[in-house]
Amino acid sequence: MDQHPINFAAKFNLFSEFWSPKIIAQMNDCHFKIAKIQGEFVWHSHPETDETFIVIRGKMQIHFREGAINLGEGEMFIVPMGVEHKPVAKQECHILMIELAGTINTGDSGGQRTIEETVWI
Amino acid sequence: MDQHPINFAAKFNLFSEFWSPKIIAQMNDCHFKIAKIQGEFVWHSHPETDETFIVIRGKMQIHFREGAINLGEGEMFIVPMGVEHKPVAKQECHILMIELAGTINTGDSGGQRTIEETVWI
Repeated sequence: MDQHPINFAAKFNLFSEFWSPKIIAQMNDCHFKIAKIQGEFVWHSHPETDETFIVIRGKMQIHFREGAINLGEGEMFIVPMGVEHKPVAKQECHILMIELAGTINTGDSGGQRTIEETVWI
Repeated sequence: MDQHPINFAAKFNLFSEFWSPKIIAQMNDCHFKIAKIQGEFVWHSHPETDETFIVIRGKMQIHFREGAINLGEGEMFIVPMGVEHKPVAKQECHILMIELAGTINTGDSGGQRTIEETVWI
């Protein structure tokens, strides 16, 4: 058993690229991933899992076809399985995501911004 | 679809009692619960689920039979399924827990501090 706590800020210090989630922990069948985001991501959905967003630093928006929500530090939102969404951050934002292990960042949309193999950090 | 973000601080303002987790969200088969803790809880384990602890405010310790870890704000730890543990907080601490829906706070130990029905808040 790994007896070290996971410190979010320390983990975020280990990389700088945007839109490239890193796995930091597994609980049951779920991965905890952190990502730095800035700008607009692509519209996509995850047919196999709900997806939790928790803002650790900064602000983000999650766009839906029928509107958008604003998320700030100390806030979370769960995008239901199958619901199209597009994460956006005007300025650098650090987020924690929780979702089924094996989930692909671009979901059912694919394309250039797909990270084929999400690494642990 | 509920389009409101969940604000942790606002949720913590809705109750004051210690060691009484409240459900704030569900992702797949997992519940997100918040709790205010102070003092020592009972030794227990959860044979059916890993259990994630994220400290939102304050500090806590998780004791294991072979030692203890310290968790502060912005840190998390996942207690593996079946591992005996005892949460402790010298001063008031606010935590977010993620675990399989239906998990009982005292796990396999039962006793006076068991919350029979965890409520949503």
